[in-house]
Formats: sequence, structure tokens, C-alpha cells
Amino acid sequence: MTSDDGSINFTVFRGSKSGKIVGSNVHHAPLTGDQVLVKITHSGLCGTDEHYRHSDQVLGHEGVGTIVSTATDVKGFKKGDIVGFGYLHSTCGDCEHCLTGRETFCPARVWYGNGDYDLGSLASHTVWRASFLFHIPPNMSPAIAAPLQCAGATIFNAIEGYDTRPTERVGVIGVGGLGHLAVQMAAKMGCTVVVFSGTESKKKFAMEALGAKEFHATAGKDKIEHCEPVDRLIVTTSALPSWELYMPILKPEAKIFPLTVAEGDFSFPALPMVQQGITIQGTVVAPRAVHQRMLRFCAEHEVQPVVEEFPMTAEGIQEAFEKMGSGGMRYRGVLVAQD
Amino acid sequence: MTSDDGSINFTVFRGSKSGKIVGSNVHHAPLTGDQVLVKITHSGLCGTDEHYRHSDQVLGHEGVGTIVSTATDVKGFKKGDIVGFGYLHSTCGDCEHCLTGRETFCPARVWYGNGDYDLGSLASHTVWRASFLFHIPPNMSPAIAAPLQCAGATIFNAIEGYDTRPTERVGVIGVGGLGHLAVQMAAKMGCTVVVFSGTESKKKFAMEALGAKEFHATAGKDKIEHCEPVDRLIVTTSALPSWELYMPILKPEAKIFPLTVAEGDFSFPALPMVQQGITIQGTVVAPRAVHQRMLRFCAEHEVQPVVEEFPMTAEGIQEAFEKMGSGGMRYRGVLVAQD
Repeated sequence: MTSDDGSINFTVFRGSKSGKIVGSNVHHAPLTGDQVLVKITHSGLCGTDEHYRHSDQVLGHEGVGTIVSTATDVKGFKKGDIVGFGYLHSTCGDCEHCLTGRETFCPARVWYGNGDYDLGSLASHTVWRASFLFHIPPNMSPAIAAPLQCAGATIFNAIEGYDTRPTERVGVIGVGGLGHLAVQMAAKMGCTVVVFSGTESKKKFAMEALGAKEFHATAGKDKIEHCEPVDRLIVTTSALPSWELYMPILKPEAKIFPLTVAEGDFSFPALPMVQQGITIQGTVVAPRAVHQRMLRFCAEHEVQPVVEEFPMTAEGIQEAFEKMGSGGMRYRGVLVAQD
Repeated sequence: MTSDDGSINFTVFRGSKSGKIVGSNVHHAPLTGDQVLVKITHSGLCGTDEHYRHSDQVLGHEGVGTIVSTATDVKGFKKGDIVGFGYLHSTCGDCEHCLTGRETFCPARVWYGNGDYDLGSLASHTVWRASFLFHIPPNMSPAIAAPLQCAGATIFNAIEGYDTRPTERVGVIGVGGLGHLAVQMAAKMGCTVVVFSGTESKKKFAMEALGAKEFHATAGKDKIEHCEPVDRLIVTTSALPSWELYMPILKPEAKIFPLTVAEGDFSFPALPMVQQGITIQGTVVAPRAVHQRMLRFCAEHEVQPVVEEFPMTAEGIQEAFEKMGSGGMRYRGVLVAQD
């Protein structure tokens, strides 16, 4: 793996034109600066991996593993530490955004998909800067920790990173990979969590296992009955909801977080937005300080993604993609190293 | 005007089906509670008055006048005081929104156009609750004060009421009734004000008279050159701008305030909104505490709407509407009582 000259060889899994997952070898220069070599044991599979499935990019950005070796400038991490890493590879460190703990908005940020195409968490190893690694709390299993590196961080950021009060009614649209974490996190923060889902099929799970206080099935409805307005609405579905349906259950000055929108325009009825003082808030994954708080919070309060495990092989990754694509994943796929 | 039995008669100006302005008489019950009778001396004309021009609603919601008499419960105001009033007639006083100084979002709010159709500022008098009147600072002329009651309050709220820092670059799209106040207010708060206007025609005025630091003519442009990104963008034009044009000059985490949107959907490119952490903020006129601060600030810093005066007669109002509708008003019409 590490040669006599310090150079490193490891296996990675990339997409390809056809969408078939392809394993290949990477030859990486010796560690330098604050770089760390991580042996990856677990990786979550995220909906955004689908974007790169037809590219050369190494897939995966929800990694957990064990440190194998460290370069000379590394502080705070040592061989054997269990660490996580997510979207962010590096930032400039000096701009207004970096200096205020908002480094996810650093104009020079390098993150998954616009950085090093040889680095990702669907791989045997990765080389990562220590400054962008996170210690996994001792009582948190690596399979649980993996989906927190992107899904967990994104949700936590939209809640804790944007000043949710524990007295808020927090609406969560969709109970999937993101939504089932949103319900747990907000509930453990003391919020009254109100779930909106297509059918009743996830009601018991949402209320008994995740901590939701209310559950509303919305398919085919043109009105949501018996629902006091919410202070915050976290949209975790890939399609935007019908605002006519949700407008009556938005409190004045409600904040809407559309987390998963991708292409095209975000549209919202203009007059109610103005008259009710609605905030539409774009958010990305958490800055590192929020990410660290997220891990501590999840460990202390046992916020745990429900995961399905697959072997971290080309076939296993392929299978996990198929299951995610069919909407059948309950609730987050995790690839597990086989050695 | 006030009869022996305490009942009150005054003249009001309403819209009509054809859009012709019609003067008529109102017979109002004697003052009660904290009601005040105001002899109106000046009223601004606002774009939203156009919405009611074909209705029975008394027009005008930027009133300034002199107190004629007060009911028994009135505190803090007395006969002869010069006062202003705007959009808000009343609120419940007891809900979360009222109790936190956010009473413009009180679900029981009654404001211009959904309240008493006999009350408005295009009239000889109005009856208003003392709690919803504002003292006009002694060094502020009533013609200047009138447009501040809605236009000024709306702009100030979007700036001061939503935590603008004096170090921000504040973009203002449009130099009209709202925009020319936005430039002055933000400049007097220490912000670097960057104006976006169709042509160069208002450049000298915006930079020399209003205090803008930069001016960009945007008509026919597909790129805004030599413009560092802005922290905040105040959209005062009735049509939404082309976001492709503005996206490159929005700072990460920029806040956008679309003040004048009315019908249809507000649309914004979803991916940049999320990736850049953009906030879209709906806002209305100012809560009363912000309105009071606005009047003090404008008096101290000589923030002054540029006004064109018209006689407060059916013909004068008609003429002001025509000028506003043609886009020729420089920059806010004010109707002046003729007695």
C-alpha cells in the first residue's frame, strides 16, 4: 500500500459512462503537509453520488475509517484514530467566510466533485487533510457515523446551524435518508416535530422510533387538516411540494429549507412570501464547527441513521445504487470494507 | 366636522369601477377607546394604491396630519400634535408576534385594504387608534414625512429591521419611490451602496444626491462588469430581475429582499441558492418599534424623499395617479390638503 519511497497505492470505485461501477488503482504521491492516510472501513451512499455515477470521479463523500499514517504537520490525529470525512476537502483559511466559521462558503473551497477526482469514500483508502477530518466519538459505531458525514451534517446545519429554538414546531417533508435524521435531531432538541409523508406507511416508524409528535399523510390531499402552523419546514424530498398545500400550515415568518433541490428554479408564491415574511434559506453541508457539534450531539442523544449494509465492492456499490434508485433503501445505504 | 352628538363627518377619496377618483362624505361614530381624530394635511401616493383604485376602499396609507381631538383612553398624544400613520390599523396585542415586536405578522392584524373601507390617508380626516400613530419629529416637514409612512418604513425594515451591518455592500435595484430612499438610508448607515438601474439617466442623482458609491446601468447587459459582490440586494422594481445577471455579483450567504413582488411566483435558480447559502427574505412594512426608529433616523440624518406635490382633490389625485402610472414621478407623489 505504502511503497518504500512513500508513495501510496489504493483501490477506488468510480462511475463510468454507462453507470457501471468500476474499481481501479490510484497511485498517490507521498503524504505531505497535514495529509493523513485513512483506511476506509465504511461509506454512506448519498443521493448526490448519483450525479457523479456517469463520471470519472471517485464516488462517495460519507467516509469513516482508521488512520494508517500521518504527515509531519498533522496535529490532533494519530495512527489508529477513527475518523470521518465528508464533502469538504479544503478552504483558503483566510477569507471572511473562513475566519467566521462559515468556510463552506469560502470562494476557494474545494469539495467533493470539484477537487481531486481520485479521492472519495468509496475506496480502500483516501488521503485527506487533517484539518478536514473529524474524530468519531468513542461510543458511535462507524456504520452509524458514516451517513452523518453528509446527510447528518446537512440536516443538523439547517436546524442547529440556523438557530432553531427548542420550542419550535419543525415540519419535515419526507422520511428518507435525510428526513429520518431530521426528525430524530429536531425531536432530541426539544422541538415538536411534524412529519409530512405521502402515505401512512412510515407513520409508526416516524412517531415511535424517530420521535415525531404528528404525522400527516399528504398524497392526494388538497388540504392538511388539524395541523397547527410550523415555524420551520425542512424539505427533504427531491421534488418541491405543492405550496398551496403547505401555505396554510406555515406560521408567519416561517423559515423554509429546501435541502435537496438540484436543477431548475425554486418557485414560491410571491405575495404570501412577502405578506407573511417567509424566509427561503439555501443551505449546504455544515461548516466544521457545526459538524463537530453534530457528532457530539448525535453520540450523546443516540441519533442514529437506520442503515442497510452492502459490501464495498463494485457489485455491492452497484446493488446499493439500484436500491437507492428504486426508493427502497431503509434508510441509508452503507458500504462496508471486506477486509 | 364633529357634531354635537360627537359623531364626525369628513371627506374621503375612493376609487371606483372605472378608476376615476370620487370624493364622498363619511359619517363616523363618536371617538371611543384610544381613537384619535386626525386632520390630514399630507398623503403620499404608493404603487399599491393602484390595487385599490378600482374598489370602494378609501385610498392612501401614507398619512400625515394634525390631531383635532382624542378619546378618553388616549395616552401620549394630544390635540395639535403632528402625527403619521401607515398601513397598520390594529393588532391583537397578545399573540407571540405582538409580544415580540413583530406585530405586522399578528394573525389578527388589520391593515389598510382589509380593514375599515372608510379610512385612508386620501381624505380630509381619519379616525385612527393612538397606538398606531407616530409622532413626526419636530424638524421633519409633513410633506417629507408622508412617504416615510409606507415606502420609508418598508425600506428601513428590510435594512435595519433585518440586521444590516454598516460594513455591508448593499445593492439596490431600481431608483424610484422605494429605491431612492433605500440608497439614502443604507448610505447613512455607513453601507457601501451599489445601484443597479436600467440606464445612466439617474447616475448623477444617485451618486451625488443620494449617496450611492457605485452605479451600474444594466439595460441590455448580460454581465455586470467591475462589480464586487454585494451582501444584500434590495429589489425595488416591480418586475423581478434576471438572476443570471445578478448571480455573479451576489456574495455567498447574500440576502435578497424582493419588496414589490405582487402576483405569481417568485423564482430563483435552485442550485446556486443552495450552494451559495442564499437567503430570500419576504418582508412587509415595519413593526412600530422599527417605524419609530426609522423616523428618528431619517430626521437625524436628513433622509428625505424627493416629492412632487399635488392638490388633495379628486383631480389632483387623478393627476398624481397618471404621473405615477407613466413612470414619470420624481420620486414620490404627495397630495397636499388645500385648506
